[in-house]
Amino acid sequence: MLTLSQYRGSPMHQEMILLGHGSGGKLSHQLLDDLIIPTLSGIAPKDQNDAAVLSQDGRRLAFTTDSYVVDPIFFPGGNIGDLAVNGTVNDLAMSGAAPLALSVGLILEEGLPRQDLQRILCSMREAADNAGVRILTGDTKVVPRGKADKIFINTSGIGYFKYPVEPNGGKAGEGDKVLINGTIGDHGMAVLASREELNLEADIRSDTVALHGLVDLLLDRFGEQIHVLRDPTRGGVATTLKEIARQSGVDILLQEQSLPVCDQVRALCSVLGMDPLFVANEGKMLLLVSAEAADAVLDLLRRHPLGEHAAMIGEVVGASSVGKVFMQTTIGGRRAIEMLAGEQLPRIC
Amino acid sequence: MLTLSQYRGSPMHQEMILLGHGSGGKLSHQLLDDLIIPTLSGIAPKDQNDAAVLSQDGRRLAFTTDSYVVDPIFFPGGNIGDLAVNGTVNDLAMSGAAPLALSVGLILEEGLPRQDLQRILCSMREAADNAGVRILTGDTKVVPRGKADKIFINTSGIGYFKYPVEPNGGKAGEGDKVLINGTIGDHGMAVLASREELNLEADIRSDTVALHGLVDLLLDRFGEQIHVLRDPTRGGVATTLKEIARQSGVDILLQEQSLPVCDQVRALCSVLGMDPLFVANEGKMLLLVSAEAADAVLDLLRRHPLGEHAAMIGEVVGASSVGKVFMQTTIGGRRAIEMLAGEQLPRIC
Repeated sequence: MLTLSQYRGSPMHQEMILLGHGSGGKLSHQLLDDLIIPTLSGIAPKDQNDAAVLSQDGRRLAFTTDSYVVDPIFFPGGNIGDLAVNGTVNDLAMSGAAPLALSVGLILEEGLPRQDLQRILCSMREAADNAGVRILTGDTKVVPRGKADKIFINTSGIGYFKYPVEPNGGKAGEGDKVLINGTIGDHGMAVLASREELNLEADIRSDTVALHGLVDLLLDRFGEQIHVLRDPTRGGVATTLKEIARQSGVDILLQEQSLPVCDQVRALCSVLGMDPLFVANEGKMLLLVSAEAADAVLDLLRRHPLGEHAAMIGEVVGASSVGKVFMQTTIGGRRAIEMLAGEQLPRIC
Repeated sequence: MLTLSQYRGSPMHQEMILLGHGSGGKLSHQLLDDLIIPTLSGIAPKDQNDAAVLSQDGRRLAFTTDSYVVDPIFFPGGNIGDLAVNGTVNDLAMSGAAPLALSVGLILEEGLPRQDLQRILCSMREAADNAGVRILTGDTKVVPRGKADKIFINTSGIGYFKYPVEPNGGKAGEGDKVLINGTIGDHGMAVLASREELNLEADIRSDTVALHGLVDLLLDRFGEQIHVLRDPTRGGVATTLKEIARQSGVDILLQEQSLPVCDQVRALCSVLGMDPLFVANEGKMLLLVSAEAADAVLDLLRRHPLGEHAAMIGEVVGASSVGKVFMQTTIGGRRAIEMLAGEQLPRIC
């Protein structure tokens, strides 16, 4: 494994795939923008969202896919199975779509205990039932021992638009308020703390959960006032806000003191020298909403079981060709927030 | 790696995942029928097809997923990229649907040469363009060296029904003729022959190709007379016909002398003691059609570039609660055909 500084100084930069290319941060975006997206689809950056929207016979559908390679496969608060179902349901929800059907592609490593598979499948079914979505189609491959790591899961999903509202990353405008439905960094730190080799003891649970029910309430009540919804998974809140700032062409100012972080996550991040702003979440969403609606949205979030610790964490301060994110720190300074650089936490989802 | 006989005699039978569980054959079906399908979806065996069909607001859509783990990733006639696109387009086509959109989920091993990735992505785009389908959404994960094998690709697809015809594995009836659009075993033997460790020289190319154009012609002209379409991938023609026989509750009789096998495949199979009837195809489909239409279907196939070597290879001889497949051999005997047992060729797709 190369460190980021070794990588930057080496010709491999251009020549091979590195862990950081899967981080969700800066290197991931470079690989996507320079190679993968132009080659596969040519979809313009401003149209890149958690789910694609397609039209057929005048009807609109959302379509999304995610592969899960989390290590370990079982962690406090969930496992790779419910993570895969909730993650894809959330990608649909972030586009404003209600989940209609999921597919499941399993890649199993020879020797995987059958009871582990069973436990994971049961969690998938339970998560799908909780989300009211059916798993309609699937595929199973097995590779020899040492050619994969226990189990990888792809979930793809189709959603439909119940409301005539399609929030997306390009709709943030000046004056919009930035909200989040709860504490940040829980998933990433729960997974990290459960890695055997670290031998850490921390009472942190993943926040993996399906958010579409909460999104449904928001879209029903606030409609077009909900401009952007996005779940800050790999790369965390910082990277996701940076994506939104770029996509919408706006600058965003965050208030550090408003960021909800639970004590255990704060403590573990502090020990490990990590910033919760860059740590993955799996049950959180960032909302950019009109200033008029912001207080009422926050009120709705806080009354919902999945938004108890919701907070208004910042605002869009103006248009910008670059799309910058700044943070007003608790000690009074202001610092620029960039995307996650390198591979802070590989295999977090 | 356990051999099949070791496996059968061991308590591991129940306890862990084996390579054979990914073969597409008997063990795969056991795992699917005993664990995966009942847990995830509860879809009845008679409704299990290459693609699921979902209804939304009175419109019907096909939805399918496949993960590709082929080894090696480049082989004569194709690579893991066009294989993944063509395979998912074909699964849609086999359900009678025209491809509308694809998703791509990449799992990359750290250290994958960037130019290999580029070559694979270019093949995917080219295959998608050839099939007239857009890659609309995607996801990229990277795992540390040794935790995957170069690249795994999931493609999921959405299709729409252009014709009011939905062929499926449950529609075979007495008297139906069984046709195939060309030679069998090409893909599996091309991949096998290109494995370095075998050091074989064989001039065999994979048949990977998208079949939806040919299917479109067939459905347009023959409509409801096309009862079943299915692509005999993992497990080959034998396993796929056995699936159809079970799903439709019929017995099928094959004529060995009618099976199109190219000389090189026949020779290599003979050397390795393999039966082409169990070897994977990626550009072939089995058609079960009404007796009245059979000659005209064969004629259409043979006039098409993807059906030059098409043949009528058997027929449905009667209803059956078990669903048996027999073969009339060239030396005059009749033998029962079972599903592929064990792991004849792991990682063939």
